[in-house]
Amino acid sequence: MIYLDYSATTPISYDVLDSYDKASKEFIGNPNSLHGLGIKSKELISSATKQISELLGTSEQEIIYTSGATESNNMALIGVALARKKMGNHIIVSKLEHPSIYKICDYLKELGFLISYVDNDSDGLVNFEDLKNKIRAETILVSICAVNSELGIREPLKMIRQIIKKENPNIIFHSDMTQALGKIPVIVKDVDLASFSLHKIYGPKGIGLLYKSNLVKLVPIIHGSSKDNELRAGTPAVALIAAAAKAIRLGIQDLDRKETFIKKLNEKIVEDFNNYDGITINSTKYSIPHILNVSLKGIKPETFVHAMEEYEIYLGTNTACSSGDVSPTIMALYDDKERAISTIRISLSYLTTTEEINRFLNCFSIVYKKLGSLNMVN
Amino acid sequence: MIYLDYSATTPISYDVLDSYDKASKEFIGNPNSLHGLGIKSKELISSATKQISELLGTSEQEIIYTSGATESNNMALIGVALARKKMGNHIIVSKLEHPSIYKICDYLKELGFLISYVDNDSDGLVNFEDLKNKIRAETILVSICAVNSELGIREPLKMIRQIIKKENPNIIFHSDMTQALGKIPVIVKDVDLASFSLHKIYGPKGIGLLYKSNLVKLVPIIHGSSKDNELRAGTPAVALIAAAAKAIRLGIQDLDRKETFIKKLNEKIVEDFNNYDGITINSTKYSIPHILNVSLKGIKPETFVHAMEEYEIYLGTNTACSSGDVSPTIMALYDDKERAISTIRISLSYLTTTEEINRFLNCFSIVYKKLGSLNMVN
Repeated sequence: MIYLDYSATTPISYDVLDSYDKASKEFIGNPNSLHGLGIKSKELISSATKQISELLGTSEQEIIYTSGATESNNMALIGVALARKKMGNHIIVSKLEHPSIYKICDYLKELGFLISYVDNDSDGLVNFEDLKNKIRAETILVSICAVNSELGIREPLKMIRQIIKKENPNIIFHSDMTQALGKIPVIVKDVDLASFSLHKIYGPKGIGLLYKSNLVKLVPIIHGSSKDNELRAGTPAVALIAAAAKAIRLGIQDLDRKETFIKKLNEKIVEDFNNYDGITINSTKYSIPHILNVSLKGIKPETFVHAMEEYEIYLGTNTACSSGDVSPTIMALYDDKERAISTIRISLSYLTTTEEINRFLNCFSIVYKKLGSLNMVN
Repeated sequence: MIYLDYSATTPISYDVLDSYDKASKEFIGNPNSLHGLGIKSKELISSATKQISELLGTSEQEIIYTSGATESNNMALIGVALARKKMGNHIIVSKLEHPSIYKICDYLKELGFLISYVDNDSDGLVNFEDLKNKIRAETILVSICAVNSELGIREPLKMIRQIIKKENPNIIFHSDMTQALGKIPVIVKDVDLASFSLHKIYGPKGIGLLYKSNLVKLVPIIHGSSKDNELRAGTPAVALIAAAAKAIRLGIQDLDRKETFIKKLNEKIVEDFNNYDGITINSTKYSIPHILNVSLKGIKPETFVHAMEEYEIYLGTNTACSSGDVSPTIMALYDDKERAISTIRISLSYLTTTEEINRFLNCFSIVYKKLGSLNMVN
């Protein structure tokens, strides 16, 4: 089996699973309980939080556990919007966000907020001039992903922050860093809020993080009575949190070495793809090498993905979360519907091997010729 | 070690943990992915949902996965309130709810909703007359827990439903069934919405359920783009869901036999406690035997709990989620502050043994005499 859909989700690391199992067996108390078993569980959480905050460069109070990046995105956008509605009703997001961001924006529109979608250049970066122009006195929040999930475009968050804060220092800057963590160094202090998901970094599904600067006020979306997590109530998921700390520690090790290796694999694929007439590379020079998005002229992504499966090779389409739709990211960059309905996403990991890529390219060639000629017949 | 705080949380069943591990290792695809690995994960979720829905007597579409009961409660109350705000702004809850319900109500008050707290009789049951009187034309929602978490009082949901629906069939009836599942048979069809938590039933922390009748409309609290779970977006936590199905299947087996056994243990404790002058039993004839709440005159619960820990015996105070406060449930039933600040909760499981209870009673006697006499000295 060759898995090339690591940006949709990653297989859990057995070391991480081991941490989960150990914590599940050894830490049975409810961290909210007063007795020793409760305290023991609470201490495990504190120690995990300390580790995570050190790894991410935050304070411990700035880490909030959620059920995943979608909840983190909801908490950040809705939470800030509701907390700051007296200061303004205008929010800016990029055109390269994860689909969940747009759904949250749709909801915020129903609540009376105004959403602006900032333009990007054809290489995928946010257009700085357009961003400046869209910032108004009523702008309370800007949300721009660190790495786009479809094309892997990496946004210059530090520069974007400077532009935003220069125009209006009161604007809160959120970034969905889900596709960045474990792939590139993340600098959470470039932003005021950042969303993370553990299952994208060889951790368990069902847990995410929200980094929230101590200076930012939020209205919770999940209310309850826990004293230690008043912004996000509910019994803390002790073992998932222990596993999260392990996944982050392992996930951000050796990023340079991993990236160099993945870059070579990516270049090998691109070099091979250059031999085909009908393949357009959608990823740009700002894309991280972990994500390679291409359009296969006249071929339906689903058909291609299923044909590759016969060789036990697993590829993504645009994103797992909007499978089957016209890619909004491709439309934003290239304004080309034909291209936007024929994209596949090859996402690589440090676990990917050169042999896997060789076999992938061989099988790709067979499938592409078969489907391409079928297509020409039609 | 003797654990007598099963209502705060339960140790995970090793069979359930095994299901979690297997699913984590074997189902690596994102259920939203189009390819075979995604489909395999999606099928595992479908099969878990089918099992859960059969066990709970619902349809598959009526099961929504959440991160826990607190989220389920939020989703139910806020979701219904927002969906029905044009129909009315009045909500009724009991005085025996989990603290999260009251925090949600506080938030709903900020949004302009009016909350009524229905009285209960001194035996803990909701006062039917008061419920009838509190229902108005603008009442859109009633929320009453199936089993109270502090005293274990079991509410007659079927009768309550009849009263509500007779007064106004449009009122939505929600019940927090967190303390009921795995202890007594739950009949979700008595209500329109029901909240569940898996870690109360020997399952993992970080997953809960919301039963939502197909007839009920909700505004989501977590927005996103997933096609199969539009009311609760986010990548489904495949392995947690598989573990949930296992936990529910095991948890609701042999309820009668388990209850009979637990009842004997409970009676043994009560019989022993009757020998003490300063102990008042707070649980009533409507309490399930799994939860025994008592007040220890003049003794601070924290002090008692910590003293018992020296014998490796772990007891609860009022609830894990409001540790240290005056028990609102005791106040609602007995209006006695001294009693409400001196409660401990002994919660039993089918895993509890007669030997454990014997040792508990011996140690209890030693600690009680010691702390009681210290108290008298003061």
